Amino acid sequence: MPVGGNEEKTGDAGILRRFLEVSDGERARIAVIPTASNRADTGSRYHKLFDELGAKRVDVLPYASRRDADRDEWLRVLENATGIFLTGGNQLRISTILGGTPVAKMIRRRNARGVAVGGTSAGAAILSEHMIAYGEEGSTPRAGAATLAPGFGLTNRVIIDQHFRQRDRLGRLLSALAYNPFAVGIGLDEDTAAFIDPHDTLHVEGGAGAITIVDTGSLGYTSMATIKPGAPVCVTEIRLHVLTAGASYNLHTRKPTPPPAGRDEE
Amino acid sequence: MPVGGNEEKTGDAGILRRFLEVSDGERARIAVIPTASNRADTGSRYHKLFDELGAKRVDVLPYASRRDADRDEWLRVLENATGIFLTGGNQLRISTILGGTPVAKMIRRRNARGVAVGGTSAGAAILSEHMIAYGEEGSTPRAGAATLAPGFGLTNRVIIDQHFRQRDRLGRLLSALAYNPFAVGIGLDEDTAAFIDPHDTLHVEGGAGAITIVDTGSLGYTSMATIKPGAPVCVTEIRLHVLTAGASYNLHTRKPTPPPAGRDEE
Repeated sequence: MPVGGNEEKTGDAGILRRFLEVSDGERARIAVIPTASNRADTGSRYHKLFDELGAKRVDVLPYASRRDADRDEWLRVLENATGIFLTGGNQLRISTILGGTPVAKMIRRRNARGVAVGGTSAGAAILSEHMIAYGEEGSTPRAGAATLAPGFGLTNRVIIDQHFRQRDRLGRLLSALAYNPFAVGIGLDEDTAAFIDPHDTLHVEGGAGAITIVDTGSLGYTSMATIKPGAPVCVTEIRLHVLTAGASYNLHTRKPTPPPAGRDEE
Repeated sequence: MPVGGNEEKTGDAGILRRFLEVSDGERARIAVIPTASNRADTGSRYHKLFDELGAKRVDVLPYASRRDADRDEWLRVLENATGIFLTGGNQLRISTILGGTPVAKMIRRRNARGVAVGGTSAGAAILSEHMIAYGEEGSTPRAGAATLAPGFGLTNRVIIDQHFRQRDRLGRLLSALAYNPFAVGIGLDEDTAAFIDPHDTLHVEGGAGAITIVDTGSLGYTSMATIKPGAPVCVTEIRLHVLTAGASYNLHTRKPTPPPAGRDEE
């Protein structure tokens, strides 16, 4: 369940509440990994939030070095968690500290067994096999505008970008997809989440923004292989969907479903 | 020939040079309309530029009030021009001063008879039947994010937005199209032009940026009619093409053609 960043933390806190729901609700044991953040209070902040929302148990696992990844007691927490949540910050802190460690393996294995794994901002980017490490902003794709790095690999069907509307990232998401158009691009606005169910259907959660789906499955042409770094990339036949709360998208058939009638008018 | 703004004015000045070419080359008589701009030197600047590029004659027609629109000697200049060029500034200055006047009619009539009409930035926006008067920026479309106004109506096939990459305008172009998806959206980067030939094929000119084509012809769903102002709009099944110099797009068949092989490698 990747979140676009900056999710509501007071009032309804709809997205975090939904994460708790899919993490077994009142019986939820949440493990929070604040590794992306370099603020000391990020972990305790989410601890408090999930406590208040009614989690049965919350543990913060502040992995700060690769050596931390071997701590048995923290691995046991992950093994028993019903939901694992990665905070925002810098996705390269997560990948450099946890990449290739027993922690990354455990998260992947638990997720494959149905445990909810959520992340916001950097914590969202890390979830897929290929993540955008960084890149320039603006809506036209340019060669080299996105730098990819391996992520946790919970899915290889999607490439995720976050703060999508707020930071104008269509160009870098298109650049990332133009390298190899096999994946579906998921552009997450802030306070908006993509709940991907066990059947690989993505459900849009949160009302503040939208999710932009970039489907390059029937791409006609891309000049990515031949142009110089920094030059604009020619790409044709992209399918684009902008989905709001209540809408869904099937990652197998690549078909969108609009929100149920009436929901928009609320 | 709409230009995305900020076209190169020194060195090669490729786009202005191309405009001169399609305006009869060495025999070109160019009329410059600097009405959008509130800088006093805009007209004389383009006068000098077209002079240096080899125009036979350049006239500046600084329409500043609706009364100016009746000046016979200026109308005669327009009647004899082989190319008419509208500068940047504020498109609402052009539409409020020249809308519904003999000048607007003359420009439309001359263009229908094959005279080149070009415009940069605001001067590009005004060319189509429906123009974006203003709107907010960001890549997610929102209800009310674009305010449309009638333009000069040289074509009703397109809605043009300019400074596209530089000002992050995909959302507002999508909002404009979501009202009524009949038109094709043309997002022009700076120093990039769309030369629309007499057969309604659009050719991308200029190497600095790209043109984003937003085709809503097979739109699946839009929530525009039911949502509140400011709320994100759900839109599905948009076809998107990002076209670079040398590529073209047929506005009838809505098919893109990539740049000729080898051109990208230059």
